Amino acid sequence: MASKSKNKGVSPSRQEDFPAWFQAVVREGEVAELAHVRGSMVIRPWGYAIWELMQAELDRQIKRSGASNAYFPLFIPLSYIESEAEHVEGFAKEMAVVTHHRLEEDPENPGHLRPGGKLAEPLIVRPTSETIIGRSFAKWINSYRDLPLMVNQWANVVRWEMRPRVLLRTTEFLWQEGHTAFATESEARANAEQMLEVYRDFAESFLAMPVLTGEKPEEERFPGAVVTLSIEAMMQDGKALQAGTSHYLGQSFAEAAEINFLDREGERSLVHTASWGVSTRLLGALIMSHSDDIGLRLPPTVAPQQVVIVPIPRGEEGPAVLEAAEELAREIGGLSFEGIPIRVSADLRDREPPDKRWEWTRKGVPLVLELGPRDLKEGVVALRQRDIGDAKPESLERDKLGSAIPSLLAEIQASYHDAAEDRLEARTRLDVSGPDEFREFFDTDPSDASAGGFLRAPWSEAPESAQLLDEMKVTVRCLPFDQKLAPDSRCVLTGKPAVTEAVFAKAY
Amino acid sequence: MASKSKNKGVSPSRQEDFPAWFQAVVREGEVAELAHVRGSMVIRPWGYAIWELMQAELDRQIKRSGASNAYFPLFIPLSYIESEAEHVEGFAKEMAVVTHHRLEEDPENPGHLRPGGKLAEPLIVRPTSETIIGRSFAKWINSYRDLPLMVNQWANVVRWEMRPRVLLRTTEFLWQEGHTAFATESEARANAEQMLEVYRDFAESFLAMPVLTGEKPEEERFPGAVVTLSIEAMMQDGKALQAGTSHYLGQSFAEAAEINFLDREGERSLVHTASWGVSTRLLGALIMSHSDDIGLRLPPTVAPQQVVIVPIPRGEEGPAVLEAAEELAREIGGLSFEGIPIRVSADLRDREPPDKRWEWTRKGVPLVLELGPRDLKEGVVALRQRDIGDAKPESLERDKLGSAIPSLLAEIQASYHDAAEDRLEARTRLDVSGPDEFREFFDTDPSDASAGGFLRAPWSEAPESAQLLDEMKVTVRCLPFDQKLAPDSRCVLTGKPAVTEAVFAKAY
Repeated sequence: MASKSKNKGVSPSRQEDFPAWFQAVVREGEVAELAHVRGSMVIRPWGYAIWELMQAELDRQIKRSGASNAYFPLFIPLSYIESEAEHVEGFAKEMAVVTHHRLEEDPENPGHLRPGGKLAEPLIVRPTSETIIGRSFAKWINSYRDLPLMVNQWANVVRWEMRPRVLLRTTEFLWQEGHTAFATESEARANAEQMLEVYRDFAESFLAMPVLTGEKPEEERFPGAVVTLSIEAMMQDGKALQAGTSHYLGQSFAEAAEINFLDREGERSLVHTASWGVSTRLLGALIMSHSDDIGLRLPPTVAPQQVVIVPIPRGEEGPAVLEAAEELAREIGGLSFEGIPIRVSADLRDREPPDKRWEWTRKGVPLVLELGPRDLKEGVVALRQRDIGDAKPESLERDKLGSAIPSLLAEIQASYHDAAEDRLEARTRLDVSGPDEFREFFDTDPSDASAGGFLRAPWSEAPESAQLLDEMKVTVRCLPFDQKLAPDSRCVLTGKPAVTEAVFAKAY
Repeated sequence: MASKSKNKGVSPSRQEDFPAWFQAVVREGEVAELAHVRGSMVIRPWGYAIWELMQAELDRQIKRSGASNAYFPLFIPLSYIESEAEHVEGFAKEMAVVTHHRLEEDPENPGHLRPGGKLAEPLIVRPTSETIIGRSFAKWINSYRDLPLMVNQWANVVRWEMRPRVLLRTTEFLWQEGHTAFATESEARANAEQMLEVYRDFAESFLAMPVLTGEKPEEERFPGAVVTLSIEAMMQDGKALQAGTSHYLGQSFAEAAEINFLDREGERSLVHTASWGVSTRLLGALIMSHSDDIGLRLPPTVAPQQVVIVPIPRGEEGPAVLEAAEELAREIGGLSFEGIPIRVSADLRDREPPDKRWEWTRKGVPLVLELGPRDLKEGVVALRQRDIGDAKPESLERDKLGSAIPSLLAEIQASYHDAAEDRLEARTRLDVSGPDEFREFFDTDPSDASAGGFLRAPWSEAPESAQLLDEMKVTVRCLPFDQKLAPDSRCVLTGKPAVTEAVFAKAY
């Protein structure tokens, strides 16, 4: 059936304008939208369902690590923030401040309301919860028997954004923040490393998104942290996106919040703390990793619907086609992918079949099956695989669906992963040896999605390299765990002796 | 083994001081605490795990009703609030107001911070999301094909509380809010009724808490609603707790937010909306329904641990006892209750066994099993059932656990439900015929938990009854669905002709 739908993809394409393409995919895929308040977003049902699938899997992993979920107040007293000056400095103080607890009639402007009931102490809407959770830990921890203490919170946080971008930089976003306390440094460091590994595995296996793992250089650390670890993914325009972080915080937060415990020898000691988090930014990372010029492409693990059946109920066979579509959905729903029943539905809405097909295609559904009167008679369905774009459908015998569908989903999951891995490899330069070549690699037209990438090279950590990087808008993404620094290497930027291998990139 | 623990229960008892008993159970059971900011609470891991079990079950029911989860901004522009005057009036305008987006050094108070970056328009921290969600609906709904639209949000909301009480009245609390739009009044009314039925069934089956269902009288309606329905539970002190509400909102919200659609005839019409919600107040209701003078009592459905094994590893049999406890946990974890694997753990922490037992008892775990060297030799475990208080443990043969434990859990679930149902029945007066008796029933010592209850009687809805009720601090909880008004009945308060049967009570 020839499509009557005009809208076959998003505009512009990735090559034409990558940032505008991203906005279009997010909008047309009904994932999210900036709305109502500058910098705030609505996560629409389709986008939120993807987030829920991510949450469910991460929550399982977090609980397996020994942490328990809890909930702490949204509001932080100003005095808490003041007492952790170093920590706060890093947040640039761009925070939402609650100063009043009432709305009252405005006598100067009849029919309008104004803030009333001024608070004695302003309250900050949490940008992160170290200060609050630390003070609760101080109350709950008395002896070594209370350690380790590991909590996680799924919550909204607010950091005022001057240049908001949907899913990537929003004033309010959703995240999980894990906060843990241990008797010893080695346990706290191990926890930070273990959770980074959880994130790495989650990104690769669940989001089909290979990542680099490593430590952040000093100037990129979480304010107050001793060590910040991150996972870094490469988007289709070659830019880096930090997709999760994990921090070993030493004892400075414990000192500020007075989190101490009676050890086995009866002495009071400060705990060592760690924290770790990922956010709804992951939705942005997922989209910029896998989507194409038609729209969203979702790995089956995070697709709210893995299979959608679009009936084409023409002629007198109409009712039989609808019935067969429902029967087919029931049948496929009885199959499993990765141990979970396949998420499938028959789209019986009152719309044109080609419009339905395009809607699910734009929304990234891995497999769309069409079923018309002729298919019904021939015992087949027309199958479209989202990973191979807008190709002609393949005709599949109905009685082979049981074995075909789970393996097709596995194939799609693998194909997204492999494409992302190939890109990461192909666009990571390892052979740049001096500042001129370095500059040339990054001096690209920002709208050209095929230029640039990651650059992995020896680095001196010398202060003068910071200025060079600033000029080029390039950052050190991480000092990768798998260091391959040759002896007597020279810094790619300064020519001084290198102390580490670093990965450089432009970043979101 | 004689307990060395001094702390066998909470103080005071329910009879001594019910409100103080409630605070103690919440604190000692590690459910939640008011902390950090006046009126805000921390929900501790044990309390949050109960909430997560409630969420999971409610979420399943909400999705089964056809609604999808989504997420909307925390902040509402002041202009949205102003445009819905009637709606706002009812919230008494006690809302947190964000007026600044930055903290800056305070030049008048060196070393301190003050609000900076004044916003052009103040933002309100959502007390509920009708105004925001309505405006999104207006954008998303174009034709009858886009209806019905049903979304639900799990979120935090803020309503400034002057007299906060943990779990019952807090400035910030967690809830779900469902918002739905339909082409016709009958569909919207049916949705409000259907969701109330979801709440009723959830309260009774899952929380073991029988409730009354009915409609709120006009003055108790949600501001702007045409109909407000509620479930009302009776606490152990005879007071009512509104445990969930569902509203048919008519077209007034649709009008304010301009939510209209092109109907099948090509005409523009306003949608009809409904909304419905329950909150972390349910944790308070659960506790005041079932707990006793020892501490929490949790129905197995909402117990984060349904069975805890406390090993008593004395003498040289110590290691064998610990091993047997772990083996026992694995075995019980292979059993199911209500189709879900039993939540069980062996408590191997470095503490005294009696302290462990009391901790789990205070936290409401339905079954605590103790296992010492002699039990091991005799092939038995010592079992304590939380529903029968601090009775002596019963000795149970180990090889009968498989059949015993699921049925004991079912027994406990039923016993909590039946006790709550018996109380609801025993403390609902049906035979009060005039204002003097009415006053006598409610004129009780507020600390006496055994006095008072619900009073069901004919009511005239006459304005002068409102004043009488106010004086007595009694409210009309609902006009019950199962009306049994006899012809020619007279109002219990005014003697005027009755128009409805009402349930009166003091309430939380």
